[in-house]
Amino acid sequence: MFTAPTKDMLFNIEHISGWSDLATLPAYGAFALEDAAAVLEEFGRFCSEVIAPLNASGDEVGAQFDKGRVIMPDGFAEAYARFVEMGWQSLPHPEDFGGQGLPRAVGAAATEMLNAANMSFALCPLLTDGAIEALLTAGSDAQKETYLAKLVSGEWSGTMNLTEPQAGSDLARIKSKAAPQGDGTYHISGTKIFITYGEHDMSQNTVHLVLARTPDAPAGVKGISLFLVPKFLVNADGSLGDRNAVTCVSIEHKLGVTASPTAVLEFEGATGFLIGEENSGLRYMFEMMNAARYAVGLQGVAIAERAYQQALSFAKERVQSAPVDGTTRDAVTIIHHPDVRRLLARMQVLTEGGRALAAYTAGWQDFARHAATPEERAEATAASEFLTPLVKGYCTENGIEVASAGVQVHGGMGFIEETGAAQHYRDARILPIYEGTTAIQANDLLGRKTLRDGGVTALKMAARVQETEKQLAAGSPAAQAVGRRLGIARESFQSVVTYFVNTAKDTPNAAYAGSVPYLMLAGNLMSGWQLARSLLAAEKALSDGRDVDFMTAKIASAQFYADHILCDAEIQRTRILEGADSLLSVSL
Amino acid sequence: MFTAPTKDMLFNIEHISGWSDLATLPAYGAFALEDAAAVLEEFGRFCSEVIAPLNASGDEVGAQFDKGRVIMPDGFAEAYARFVEMGWQSLPHPEDFGGQGLPRAVGAAATEMLNAANMSFALCPLLTDGAIEALLTAGSDAQKETYLAKLVSGEWSGTMNLTEPQAGSDLARIKSKAAPQGDGTYHISGTKIFITYGEHDMSQNTVHLVLARTPDAPAGVKGISLFLVPKFLVNADGSLGDRNAVTCVSIEHKLGVTASPTAVLEFEGATGFLIGEENSGLRYMFEMMNAARYAVGLQGVAIAERAYQQALSFAKERVQSAPVDGTTRDAVTIIHHPDVRRLLARMQVLTEGGRALAAYTAGWQDFARHAATPEERAEATAASEFLTPLVKGYCTENGIEVASAGVQVHGGMGFIEETGAAQHYRDARILPIYEGTTAIQANDLLGRKTLRDGGVTALKMAARVQETEKQLAAGSPAAQAVGRRLGIARESFQSVVTYFVNTAKDTPNAAYAGSVPYLMLAGNLMSGWQLARSLLAAEKALSDGRDVDFMTAKIASAQFYADHILCDAEIQRTRILEGADSLLSVSL
Repeated sequence: MFTAPTKDMLFNIEHISGWSDLATLPAYGAFALEDAAAVLEEFGRFCSEVIAPLNASGDEVGAQFDKGRVIMPDGFAEAYARFVEMGWQSLPHPEDFGGQGLPRAVGAAATEMLNAANMSFALCPLLTDGAIEALLTAGSDAQKETYLAKLVSGEWSGTMNLTEPQAGSDLARIKSKAAPQGDGTYHISGTKIFITYGEHDMSQNTVHLVLARTPDAPAGVKGISLFLVPKFLVNADGSLGDRNAVTCVSIEHKLGVTASPTAVLEFEGATGFLIGEENSGLRYMFEMMNAARYAVGLQGVAIAERAYQQALSFAKERVQSAPVDGTTRDAVTIIHHPDVRRLLARMQVLTEGGRALAAYTAGWQDFARHAATPEERAEATAASEFLTPLVKGYCTENGIEVASAGVQVHGGMGFIEETGAAQHYRDARILPIYEGTTAIQANDLLGRKTLRDGGVTALKMAARVQETEKQLAAGSPAAQAVGRRLGIARESFQSVVTYFVNTAKDTPNAAYAGSVPYLMLAGNLMSGWQLARSLLAAEKALSDGRDVDFMTAKIASAQFYADHILCDAEIQRTRILEGADSLLSVSL
Repeated sequence: MFTAPTKDMLFNIEHISGWSDLATLPAYGAFALEDAAAVLEEFGRFCSEVIAPLNASGDEVGAQFDKGRVIMPDGFAEAYARFVEMGWQSLPHPEDFGGQGLPRAVGAAATEMLNAANMSFALCPLLTDGAIEALLTAGSDAQKETYLAKLVSGEWSGTMNLTEPQAGSDLARIKSKAAPQGDGTYHISGTKIFITYGEHDMSQNTVHLVLARTPDAPAGVKGISLFLVPKFLVNADGSLGDRNAVTCVSIEHKLGVTASPTAVLEFEGATGFLIGEENSGLRYMFEMMNAARYAVGLQGVAIAERAYQQALSFAKERVQSAPVDGTTRDAVTIIHHPDVRRLLARMQVLTEGGRALAAYTAGWQDFARHAATPEERAEATAASEFLTPLVKGYCTENGIEVASAGVQVHGGMGFIEETGAAQHYRDARILPIYEGTTAIQANDLLGRKTLRDGGVTALKMAARVQETEKQLAAGSPAAQAVGRRLGIARESFQSVVTYFVNTAKDTPNAAYAGSVPYLMLAGNLMSGWQLARSLLAAEKALSDGRDVDFMTAKIASAQFYADHILCDAEIQRTRILEGADSLLSVSL
């Protein structure tokens, strides 16, 4: 059983993503909050009724491999066909290519829903989204013409082919080759591993985006180009032609997301088409990867939501032991036991906090594309790029904590596979790894997003937090209490940013030893800040008499987050500022 | 590949368990440190060579169920036969029954080794240890005579039968019945679930210890009696007789420890023998459970050690990316990347800290049994009972963190089952659940071990920490720095204990909302304290010119633990003292 958290998502779209400003953008002029509600409610139903029921059954059998073919679990192909038929793939994509042009803030909510319903299933559309992004960024008009509409509809799916056995986080080591054929095409050769949905038969065609090197390419990351390699070549009239020379050699036996086929692909002189310019592949891939990283962050929120719903429902049913307060000597449902409450409360606010952080980031993504002036777009781009590694890193690390707590709430039953809680714990484990490990996100955050501009963007974020603190300080006692915690966390963040800016050049090892703690501190602060903004919005709504239970709950979540989670920021600060020496001298 | 960490274990036995005092006890008079080294080195070899190689293969196939029988993975029965033949089950048990009477501190090290080699395998001896403990505590002379020697040799194995579908953490809800037959025997009926090694054919007989109710027993936990129900009845001459009326109905499909069969047992009027007195079953079971809880804590250390060794070895081999400090532009082994170091350092010190905490606790267990005066035994019992829930709760929660970090160090390879890192992540997940969840340990710590004596034992522990702080303050700069962190953590602990003692009666829900944070704080402090003691011992050894590399590493571990882990204590204090209101008002 999964119910999409539509209400919380709509609250975020309205109050966290900057909807009142977004609605003034010409790009979204025709789109109202009621439209978002209608779309998300319908998609939420689809996810609950069609996709979620395949989650456990898909996990149990997993994707199977048989002589080059992948056999998907029962029901997946039919569900995918309905997904395509109802146009769900097209939600966030441009209307020019058959998309519905929805704001990112709405698209993000839809992505979370689908992943909460069934992460293995959702990976297929997620990778297709990435391929669409790359083609929009760097594809030629002819390529867009040939591929985009089919990808946007979901009739064709997409993949990202980066990793090779010797090249994981380190793309400089990519060896796959692209030999120009003189007719504008290339022959692509090499082995790619960990290719999500690299082979399957749910879509009619698969558009592989592949990193490879042309014969005279420079060494390292500056010699990587991006190629489009369709599984079936496309005829001039758009119909499908010959099978290309790319074969699935095997699929992996994985800890989680077992229903999603992770392929080893062998390219043996497959026909490929250059995307954009030679040797610029990494740049395009980063565009695509930024979208994918953000989406993986949403997967972290999604798995947390799913695990939370399941644990909450168990805790409300399971009767065990009398309460510690002695109000009755009879056994009660375990939700009455304080530590079960504590576990569930952490699960809930980490989920809500991550969702709000993602919604806030989505708002900036929308402004980055559609704001009126170049200055506004640049500001929004900087904010969105700063936040992306936080969404990816913080929300996925929390996804593991929440899924693990979900097992714990179930007690012994949680360890039994049939209960389903264990699947979330297994599924969640890939999230801080793929599309760049948490350490890779932290390097990005520290190097590209913080040090490169001397801390300007980071400190501007802190200044924005301070604005909220002022509002909190002028508010209710609850607002003031949250504001105090927020201020302490924000000061920790500022002192850490200043430390990095001052020291990273001279002592890079010490700085990067603090990179993941910095990511966790920043993610924590930015999430807690969104929940503090939620508190202000909820108090306002309450004063208008709107939706009393929901708004009261939002306020309580912000308070719990402030007391129990935000306080971690101080410790991360201590680790970063005072812990580098002992870290670097420990004997391993 | 697994290598037993014998050196660190011997260091702990010498410097942490109070060996110099232990060696003066008549019970251990004939046993020298060199004997411990010899035993542990030989057992370590056995674990590496015979048991560890079955870990992955056992996990892959798992225990299988076939019409009431359990088929163990290949190699398990042969390895168990060698384990028995070499006398390894008998190490910590009394010489009167064929045991070797080794100190607990040595037995604990052996238990850790076996579990690190193969947790699924080790569960069988672990449960047998528990059955031995229960019989020693409450068995009649005849029962001891009939069963103990066979259990101590490992020819027969033991089980604990507590849980029923409606009775997990809440033993008051047990329904299984024991009908007296007038001849001193009882007929036991009921369904027991989650029975580890409840059915298997590695041992010749299985001694089930079963909680059940006699006809007129009072309701709740005061009406539970403990029965011995052998799988095969034992004839007067000690030979095996008829199969008893207990059958294995099924085994569970679990997230981890898949090679260890977890049985549903149906007792259908099985012949049982009362252990001790009627209605005292829970008391005896607690004796047995305390030993088992401590052993599960060791499993947490063990899985951490195994995960750490595997991740470390991968990090030393895997080449990926140039270092951030620019010392070379070539890719280096990933252990050179600061965040990989950070992950590995956390893994290492959480493992070492847990091991040292367990070794310290084992020392108190030895004194509790063998100290000369009743006063000394009482003091040791109080200390050991205070520490047991910490060993169980803190070390098992850390086992998950460490195993999860082990997956992370492997990157994408970590998610592939064949790599083996994922198995540890799956196996570790049961540890904070079975033998009492972390919340149950925390209730025990707060209720029985802290509030019941008004905080006396807890504060006495703090005073012992303060003694070490004094020594650190008089020592090297490293010692002083660790001492400062230790002092801050100890003050947090004291203020929390005082808070609980003053408030728990009036606001029990608020107090118990802080019970797990209290457990984590106390476990952290007690572990960090042992590493601080290690630092002092290592500095002393260094000044004698002993074992420079090892001792230097111990000092560095203590420093890293102090800077990166001990500091968490402050945040737990904040959560406990300031976080109860928001926890109890969050809307779930």
